[in-house]
Amino acid sequence: MIRILPREEKFSELFNQQATVLHEAARVLLDMMEGPCAEIAERANQIKALEHRGDTMTHDIITRLNRTFITPLDREDIHELSSRMDDVIDLIDATASRMMLFKITERRPAGIELARIIKRAAAEIVAAVPHITGERDKILEHCQELNRLEHEADTVCRSAIAQLFEEERDPITLIKWKEIFEVLEAAVDKAEDVSDVLETIVLKSA
Amino acid sequence: MIRILPREEKFSELFNQQATVLHEAARVLLDMMEGPCAEIAERANQIKALEHRGDTMTHDIITRLNRTFITPLDREDIHELSSRMDDVIDLIDATASRMMLFKITERRPAGIELARIIKRAAAEIVAAVPHITGERDKILEHCQELNRLEHEADTVCRSAIAQLFEEERDPITLIKWKEIFEVLEAAVDKAEDVSDVLETIVLKSA
Amino acid sequence: MIRILPREEKFSELFNQQATVLHEAARVLLDMMEGPCAEIAERANQIKALEHRGDTMTHDIITRLNRTFITPLDREDIHELSSRMDDVIDLIDATASRMMLFKITERRPAGIELARIIKRAAAEIVAAVPHITGERDKILEHCQELNRLEHEADTVCRSAIAQLFEEERDPITLIKWKEIFEVLEAAVDKAEDVSDVLETIVLKSA
Repeated sequence: MIRILPREEKFSELFNQQATVLHEAARVLLDMMEGPCAEIAERANQIKALEHRGDTMTHDIITRLNRTFITPLDREDIHELSSRMDDVIDLIDATASRMMLFKITERRPAGIELARIIKRAAAEIVAAVPHITGERDKILEHCQELNRLEHEADTVCRSAIAQLFEEERDPITLIKWKEIFEVLEAAVDKAEDVSDVLETIVLKSA
Repeated sequence: MIRILPREEKFSELFNQQATVLHEAARVLLDMMEGPCAEIAERANQIKALEHRGDTMTHDIITRLNRTFITPLDREDIHELSSRMDDVIDLIDATASRMMLFKITERRPAGIELARIIKRAAAEIVAAVPHITGERDKILEHCQELNRLEHEADTVCRSAIAQLFEEERDPITLIKWKEIFEVLEAAVDKAEDVSDVLETIVLKSA
Repeated sequence: MIRILPREEKFSELFNQQATVLHEAARVLLDMMEGPCAEIAERANQIKALEHRGDTMTHDIITRLNRTFITPLDREDIHELSSRMDDVIDLIDATASRMMLFKITERRPAGIELARIIKRAAAEIVAAVPHITGERDKILEHCQELNRLEHEADTVCRSAIAQLFEEERDPITLIKWKEIFEVLEAAVDKAEDVSDVLETIVLKSA
């Protein structure tokens, strides 16, 4: 039942696929934030389907991991990398479902801006992950960019919430958007957690 | 100071006890959700007492673990299993204390429904845990059911929150119930985390 | 690239520095809670600067850790201790930035009380950490006090939130203070997580 091989490429390929699903979910989220409000429910359903695919992949990676005696990376790093990418997808889905549940009927610039940051963070992850089995040093520049994006999202979110408390007089609308901004920012935080795992993998191989 | 033995049964018995406390807390929570509002404070105190017992058990398991050289399971899995069961109990307690602090004076069907799901999840954990030292394959069917319950809770919670934003005009009441539904759902999420640890234990022994 | 030594004192000294930054942030937070509201923004900026210093330290510790073949403590404990201290600083910063973003213009006794508890918790951590490389048994009394402080913060926070729901009629003010009290309490919870790691370190060396 314990297999000595899966080839190194195997985990690597699974990670690439998971990163691609994450990027696709981020793309649909930005469409949702920029597009007509009438399409929110449809976009939320697309993201939910991607979240399910991501879940299956994470589960697949962890199952293989548990059955594998020798792995190309530290077991805990494989587990962490897959789980942290899954967290980003979950938070994209959490944002989308809130947009739908809260019956949002307006655009907010900070929502669009944060969704753009998430999409760029996803693109960095897609670019970084294939280097795990190759030139790991190339990963570090993507990690730097992910750190920068996290700080950018933090600034955007803080000023969006400050503005919300200053301008929004309807408490129920305030509750809705405060939560949407916070969940968007949490998604970027989780992308930085992905970056931390990637950095650990690079450092261990140094 | 380092003991080679504790017998395998020892950890297993501690886990059984912790699962029983969790199930008892879930039972009292459902009583609270279904019963008269006048009894909320009393039920919250019962749950708080159970939470303290659970805390002591987790602490006991981790202390033994740290002093034990050879353990029947991977150390990290023992630690995880105990900590995740503790998380479920903590969130049951968090719900109960909010019901009391918010001076809730009404029943909500979704609250009862979510508490029922938590109780069923607790029953699955009670049924799964004794198989750790026996036929581990029997654990998997309980994990499947815990996954199903998590999806059920998710659906119930989402529709409850959508309804809340649609119907509740008092923002303070909305804040209270939104938080209660979310904490109830978080408890079921944590029960699924217990399931993930159990699954890992099964897969490692395959 | 892998160094067999860093001397034991090295990690210990980094931990002492990190604990000192944490204590300093807690001190400024209490000043913010007690002092004039006009100074909130200035205090928040001081805390933000301390949070950045703490971040750099955590990063430094984890980088050294990953490059170090033999460490004086279990790698996972070093990682945990540094990350959990960082969490406390992050939550102090999260409180400070909310005080600023929400444009708070009033004092609340429970805010002051919780900030005092955080400062005392920070002082216990400062006192406990140097014993890691010495008489580890001396750590345990500080852990006991950290546990006690966590229970105290829990009681203060619960009664503050109950009072808020009873007395505050403006939902937006209620949202603001509910969140401030919760983040303050979360900071004390994280200080207890630091205590748990310290306790683990003591037990392993018993």
